[in-house]
Amino acid sequence: MISFFDTKETRSTAERTAELALRLPALIAHAQANSPAMAGILNGIPAAQISSLKALSALPVTRKSELHDLQKAARPFGGFNAAQYGAIRRVFSSPGPIYEPEGTQTDYARVARALFAAGMRKGDLIYNTFSYHMTPGGWIMDAGALALGCAVFPGGTGNSEQQIAAIHDLQPVAYAGTPSFLRILLEKADELGTPITYFKHALVSGEYFAPQVRALFEARGIQALQCYATADAGLIAYETGANQGMVIDEDIIVEIVRPGTGEVVPDGEVGEVVVTTFNQVYPLVRFGTGDLSAIMAGENPCGRTNARIKGWMGRADQTAKIKGMFVHPSQIAEVVKRHPEIIRARLTITNPDQRDAMALSCECAHASDALQAAITQSLRDVTKLGGEVQFCAAGSLANDGKVIDDQRKIE
Amino acid sequence: MISFFDTKETRSTAERTAELALRLPALIAHAQANSPAMAGILNGIPAAQISSLKALSALPVTRKSELHDLQKAARPFGGFNAAQYGAIRRVFSSPGPIYEPEGTQTDYARVARALFAAGMRKGDLIYNTFSYHMTPGGWIMDAGALALGCAVFPGGTGNSEQQIAAIHDLQPVAYAGTPSFLRILLEKADELGTPITYFKHALVSGEYFAPQVRALFEARGIQALQCYATADAGLIAYETGANQGMVIDEDIIVEIVRPGTGEVVPDGEVGEVVVTTFNQVYPLVRFGTGDLSAIMAGENPCGRTNARIKGWMGRADQTAKIKGMFVHPSQIAEVVKRHPEIIRARLTITNPDQRDAMALSCECAHASDALQAAITQSLRDVTKLGGEVQFCAAGSLANDGKVIDDQRKIE
Repeated sequence: MISFFDTKETRSTAERTAELALRLPALIAHAQANSPAMAGILNGIPAAQISSLKALSALPVTRKSELHDLQKAARPFGGFNAAQYGAIRRVFSSPGPIYEPEGTQTDYARVARALFAAGMRKGDLIYNTFSYHMTPGGWIMDAGALALGCAVFPGGTGNSEQQIAAIHDLQPVAYAGTPSFLRILLEKADELGTPITYFKHALVSGEYFAPQVRALFEARGIQALQCYATADAGLIAYETGANQGMVIDEDIIVEIVRPGTGEVVPDGEVGEVVVTTFNQVYPLVRFGTGDLSAIMAGENPCGRTNARIKGWMGRADQTAKIKGMFVHPSQIAEVVKRHPEIIRARLTITNPDQRDAMALSCECAHASDALQAAITQSLRDVTKLGGEVQFCAAGSLANDGKVIDDQRKIE
Repeated sequence: MISFFDTKETRSTAERTAELALRLPALIAHAQANSPAMAGILNGIPAAQISSLKALSALPVTRKSELHDLQKAARPFGGFNAAQYGAIRRVFSSPGPIYEPEGTQTDYARVARALFAAGMRKGDLIYNTFSYHMTPGGWIMDAGALALGCAVFPGGTGNSEQQIAAIHDLQPVAYAGTPSFLRILLEKADELGTPITYFKHALVSGEYFAPQVRALFEARGIQALQCYATADAGLIAYETGANQGMVIDEDIIVEIVRPGTGEVVPDGEVGEVVVTTFNQVYPLVRFGTGDLSAIMAGENPCGRTNARIKGWMGRADQTAKIKGMFVHPSQIAEVVKRHPEIIRARLTITNPDQRDAMALSCECAHASDALQAAITQSLRDVTKLGGEVQFCAAGSLANDGKVIDDQRKIE
């Protein structure tokens, strides 16, 4: 029997799109009224008119690096918060540091849905080994577990021998944490001669989940599924079965854009994950996560109708320092914009003889010497650096989200 | 201007006693109906008749060591829980291990009152360095802070350099944690050339708070007050000013009993702290904390009318192994009970020439050789060990809560 967390998971694409779009004008207005930073970014935009995903896709993208810089200039939240302490319950710190406000609403990071998909149910005890200290990982899982009607043991990280003792005493049916720490616990318990046999379900995140590690858990009767969540945005997508991609959460808008731009790429193309959350205390509109992924083709066999993404496929921020100068993906996008003939482009950096060199490969319908010279000039104008320009056939550049491919070797 | 957390703090002793007593029958009935362990302990007791503190003082005391053993026999809570997962939000583990269920009610450990007394107010950011991992310390403070309308940064323990960076970014007005970790943070920040100057208030707990450490904080403009809370009972008492004792919390009943017994000692005498909490998921009736303290004389200059205790004065569990045999404080109480002539008694253990020896000092109104012989025989009957019996004047035994004073030296 397949069951769903709620009816949102099986609505039609048209319904979902319409329902999410319906929430946009209020979100934009709320952000403009209460978040000084978002008010600046969305200055002059008529909230009522942002009533479709298409209208949303024309708004500026705010990237994680910009959030970092704006927070540094105005601690703690750089004006991205839309509430003050009291309505903000807790403050977390992610590497950077970037500070995140936690709102008071139940399951503010929307993880209950992912825990449900991973098999957890009301009344279960979830053994949570994400850290609750400074960073939000433990809290995100915790809030989801409580919303689902589960109880939580906040194990945190480390202390594996004490944790094994607690697991034997409490016999939890479910685990939340990194796959590597679950593996450490299982193997350490084996070594101690007291194997752990209680876990039936696991929701893992925070690192690459290798197929052989998943198989290892399955051999012990543990169904482990992944979710993709970030400190800023909460749950973005979650697995509903092994190796079938990750279903996008029902209360977030996910776009895949060309790195360095706000331009949505065609389905299937690798690009940066940009999210719009409806978080009242932290209303991020078109937030660039810095992660690469792609929309996955086909229907989800589990019956959930939302689009799936392929999971984490690398970092979108490909800024490189070439001959002492920074080159950003947005600059490559600027070069492309100046020449409508270019379909896609990719800058490759090498260092033959330990000297930096860059070459821009362009997919063009009609190549010509004049176009090559013009693009070479644009590249120099935008980056202040000289580089070669090469043409290649449409569709020949790798679909890996790379706009700047740094192939330099350090010897 | 003195202000109070609520009007309970200034009610008359008669009102307070009456209001607490009024809640007892429902508590006893709830514990009997929902906690299998408490149902056993309170078997046959008519709940409606436990309507006074005097009636309460006749009920059996359950000591921490018994809780430990009963939990070990029936994991996780030994039947002391009065609710199941779901209504139990989180599970914690204290050294032993002893597992505690966390209920879903706001500020379940009643710490908001202590935070308020320490100067914290709605809208403040509290930097909480108690651990949230496994043990309940961090959670107890966190729940109180949220109930007070404060925001919390869950720093946890360790990582002092990262924590100093977060403190500079967030500029929190208040600290919660151990005094020693606050000192580490302040001194480390000085060393780094970035002194911490934001904290104005601190609520400290978890260890001895030396007057010179308090003075050190005061010299930096930080008013640091202590609270006395345990994993099982939550807040027991809290300071309202430096060195003026700790005011008992308004929603707990505290009794001071002779170690090893359930007998309430006269005010001022050192004994074991026994608490009765109104915690719906963990209804502990007459729980012996194992801590020694005493009721403090006089009125509290701050205007709060509840009785004060002197803070932690040692461990009540003075069980000793003598010549390979355990001797418990309850056995000394049994000897005393057999001889109404004895006012107070104290067993002293020594090891001259590396051989264990014990002597029972008795405060008696009328000493006689016959009484001495009779007590000696009782001591042997009860402990299965031979020991000397000495008489001393009424009031001459130290008021330190010691029933068994182990003075043996290991060479």
